[in-house]
Amino acid sequence: MVLNTCLFCRIASGDVPATVVYENEFTLTFLDHRPLFPGHCLIVPKEHYETLADLPKSLVGPVFETVQLLSRAVESALAAEGSFVAMNNRVSQSVPHLHVHVVPRKKKDGLKGFFWPRTKYANEESMVEIKQRIISAITKLQQ
Amino acid sequence: MVLNTCLFCRIASGDVPATVVYENEFTLTFLDHRPLFPGHCLIVPKEHYETLADLPKSLVGPVFETVQLLSRAVESALAAEGSFVAMNNRVSQSVPHLHVHVVPRKKKDGLKGFFWPRTKYANEESMVEIKQRIISAITKLQQ
Repeated sequence: MVLNTCLFCRIASGDVPATVVYENEFTLTFLDHRPLFPGHCLIVPKEHYETLADLPKSLVGPVFETVQLLSRAVESALAAEGSFVAMNNRVSQSVPHLHVHVVPRKKKDGLKGFFWPRTKYANEESMVEIKQRIISAITKLQQ
Repeated sequence: MVLNTCLFCRIASGDVPATVVYENEFTLTFLDHRPLFPGHCLIVPKEHYETLADLPKSLVGPVFETVQLLSRAVESALAAEGSFVAMNNRVSQSVPHLHVHVVPRKKKDGLKGFFWPRTKYANEESMVEIKQRIISAITKLQQ
């Protein structure tokens, strides 16, 4: 816990109020105050981990089981046709305590199909080069 | 498997080629051909499940352990400062086979902090009303 400085630790400890919709041993879920759409939830691990990469392996299942539950729940509760689930790690991360956004979606809700302009690899070689770099990184991580 | 009709089942079976960067018992990871940035990966369960809500609980941990591994790997491989992890469930979902996007990010990479215009709840009551609807949905889902 980083009680004094981290907003989401303060919410998890009850020090700062939030509109909590779900709590279990490992996670807390509350409404985002500035939703993309009403029903937009944030799921956080109760313990302080900054990003997905920092989460202990033992908590990956529990955190994402809660995310799955909430994706079902917001779709049902908001009569949505789907949901968007996302997390920003470091870049664009407003609060440096891992939080997973779960947002109810409807067709023609005004959001673009995928919201950023996509690019292309210049050629097959550049794609293979990137592939090799990722495979090397995985190998190092698994050593 | 939905071999004949589902692109990602065809990739998982080897019927359609892809730039695979990681494979284990439960998941396959390959480069998105139209990346937001080079190194943009898609993680799919090998078996066919349409959305996060459809994934058996036993696969939630394995799938997101792979997602975590790839978030670390693309950050390392692309010398990124962070990553974006997301999935579209039904709405805006291009291929109806669960796929998690992992995208390396850098500061000032041109993407907005959070990419959609955010709204506000009209008042405290409307927020509490949404909260109650989600809590009711969770209760039903857990029965």
